[in-house]
Amino acid sequence: MKTEGMTEDEINRRHAEKMAKKKAAREKMLADKTVEKGLVIVHTGKGKGKTTGAMGLAVRAIGNGMKICVVQFVKGAWETGERRVLEHFPDQCVMKAMGEGFTWDTQDRQRDIAAARAAWDFAKAAIADPSYQMVILDELNIVLRYEYLPLDEVLETLAGKPEMQHVVITGRNAKEELIEAADLVTEMTQVKHPFRSGVKAQLGIEF
Amino acid sequence: MKTEGMTEDEINRRHAEKMAKKKAAREKMLADKTVEKGLVIVHTGKGKGKTTGAMGLAVRAIGNGMKICVVQFVKGAWETGERRVLEHFPDQCVMKAMGEGFTWDTQDRQRDIAAARAAWDFAKAAIADPSYQMVILDELNIVLRYEYLPLDEVLETLAGKPEMQHVVITGRNAKEELIEAADLVTEMTQVKHPFRSGVKAQLGIEF
Repeated sequence: MKTEGMTEDEINRRHAEKMAKKKAAREKMLADKTVEKGLVIVHTGKGKGKTTGAMGLAVRAIGNGMKICVVQFVKGAWETGERRVLEHFPDQCVMKAMGEGFTWDTQDRQRDIAAARAAWDFAKAAIADPSYQMVILDELNIVLRYEYLPLDEVLETLAGKPEMQHVVITGRNAKEELIEAADLVTEMTQVKHPFRSGVKAQLGIEF
Repeated sequence: MKTEGMTEDEINRRHAEKMAKKKAAREKMLADKTVEKGLVIVHTGKGKGKTTGAMGLAVRAIGNGMKICVVQFVKGAWETGERRVLEHFPDQCVMKAMGEGFTWDTQDRQRDIAAARAAWDFAKAAIADPSYQMVILDELNIVLRYEYLPLDEVLETLAGKPEMQHVVITGRNAKEELIEAADLVTEMTQVKHPFRSGVKAQLGIEF
């Protein structure tokens, strides 16, 4: 906004006009949006915030009185802080961890496949249950990338989910077909990371 | 991974080798990271997940026993669900809302500036207090973009923050100087949004 040579009064007036236009544009846009349905949401990309963003959605949903299910396909992310908070709401939040550790820790493909299958069967049962208004499949994309689960089966399950249920899927390298099937896809891009300057993983941030 | 013509045993063995290498590389990388300090974290970009990601960090921090302060510079985002959840932890979480509504609702620049100043003064006091281990400045970038607060004052406050305190700043259009000053910057990019297909804002997702 170029404001040189303008009085405060002029700036204020111009601001009010501009904001009134924005408000009208926004209201017009929202008026067109009438469909209500559960969304398939994907958080992907190499940046931070995929799992923490899903966690934020979990908190928002719980705060709105919804019942949710969180299935964690890779151990670690939800182990500590967030788990303790979500455990305050046992009637609203069911959590299930695959619990076999990151794949580069186990180095045992068959065990990872079995663990992925067990977590997925649990997730499928949750998705089939319309009393869950949100199901979070944390790091499912990693499991799909390693082909520990058939992508077709996942897509079919998503296509058959209860109409009003939200499903949130996280993890880098989301499959193209999953992005196609999703309603809302956000890519988290790393612009700057403290590891580059030798800072180690921090309590409350990384775990 | 090209696996045609390989037996399951061969695939498993190759996988184990690959994962062992990954694990070693990761451990080597982590061994270099020895600095421990509070981070300045920025969530920017046009996609979803900036505020919800900050909320996830809040939950993680609370779950780890930290004390946090959330200052909301634009009304709306933290009004409903998340507020109710965070209120379960009154000893660990202080919340302050600027509470004047989105700028396109008020159309009153002087009132917005006064509200931004009041929220910022509250935030500055929180940042000066090392007992807060995380301070979240939600949508501060919007306030900076409209020049409701002097950027220099914000940068100076960040430079003088307690060493171990994390400060999380959200909002699209983060200023270049803020990105420079930050340790960890994530850009949320919208790949696909349901508004495009006429879906309206959803309880538990948008508010």
